[in-house]
Amino acid sequence: MPIVTIQQFPRDVEQKRELAERVTDAFVQAYGISAESVQIFFHETDKEDWARGGRLGIDEG
Amino acid sequence: MPIVTIQQFPRDVEQKRELAERVTDAFVQAYGISAESVQIFFHETDKEDWARGGRLGIDEG
Amino acid sequence: MPIVTIQQFPRDVEQKRELAERVTDAFVQAYGISAESVQIFFHETDKEDWARGGRLGIDEG
Amino acid sequence: MPIVTIQQFPRDVEQKRELAERVTDAFVQAYGISAESVQIFFHETDKEDWARGGRLGIDEG
Amino acid sequence: MPIVTIQQFPRDVEQKRELAERVTDAFVQAYGISAESVQIFFHETDKEDWARGGRLGIDEG
Amino acid sequence: MPIVTIQQFPRDVEQKRELAERVTDAFVQAYGISAESVQIFFHETDKEDWARGGRLGIDEG
Repeated sequence: MPIVTIQQFPRDVEQKRELAERVTDAFVQAYGISAESVQIFFHETDKEDWARGGRLGIDEG
Repeated sequence: MPIVTIQQFPRDVEQKRELAERVTDAFVQAYGISAESVQIFFHETDKEDWARGGRLGIDEG
Repeated sequence: MPIVTIQQFPRDVEQKRELAERVTDAFVQAYGISAESVQIFFHETDKEDWARGGRLGIDEG
Repeated sequence: MPIVTIQQFPRDVEQKRELAERVTDAFVQAYGISAESVQIFFHETDKEDWARGGRLGIDEG
Repeated sequence: MPIVTIQQFPRDVEQKRELAERVTDAFVQAYGISAESVQIFFHETDKEDWARGGRLGIDEG
Repeated sequence: MPIVTIQQFPRDVEQKRELAERVTDAFVQAYGISAESVQIFFHETDKEDWARGGRLGIDEG
């Protein structure tokens, strides 16, 4: 604990690497817990599998 | 808000397009909120990754 | 299947009752499946437990 | 109900088949419910999409 | 890893204690992993916050 | 998008306020997106509803 789940459109591994480091540090700073206690999961969603306003992401302007 | 997550077996994009439109409209009608405030995520699961009664979907009749 | 999870701010039971009926009907219409195959879960989140733009919901104007 | 979601690194179908059977039996024994009432979803995560201690799984020793 | 999430109607702590033990053992047996690597989360849902067939759990016979 | 879900033991609002600010900033820095595009949900879990190694949190040491 804590377990962090991030739903996002696909991103390259370099961006995920940097984000994982920064998000983990956010927990260390705000909660005073060890970095090792933080687990992060990325759930990447294609634009075909997300909608807003009733329109799929692939159909947006 | 709201965020809607739909776990289902894979379906073609045409069905997801129609469902996203209809589900969003359900929120507009029942809650009186704007369509733009509704986000939908489809999480599609293969039959190998789902079980009922202790049997994987790929092993069912 | 399908399993629908709705994350939202708390709403009264009358609104959830109407939404559940309308969302289920959306699946019946779009996918041609039986109403009985649709399960819906409401996960209600207090404004203290949600943030956008780095501000908790309880701190928004 | 109940709905069981398992987040794990990818495993072969033979292991998932055995696990689904054993987890379902755990519910039957502990809760006294029917096996048919238990649904299980496997959400498999690649090592690129998981981090602990601020390091992605692909970067671990 | 693995992370197990169980969505269920509320149950007493004695049943959850027994289930956690049995489910963890299922992973140890099927995957050959250590019990310590298994984390379980119970997400309990009231009958007002679940629906099947378009009817809330509180409205079922 | 992105949607961030944090599963944790209950914490006071002051800590969640600080964490939300820092996690949002992590996305702005790593992905170059606007703070407004980041939504965070806290899912707090009591020690009765979490287990590791087959033992509920309330039964640990």
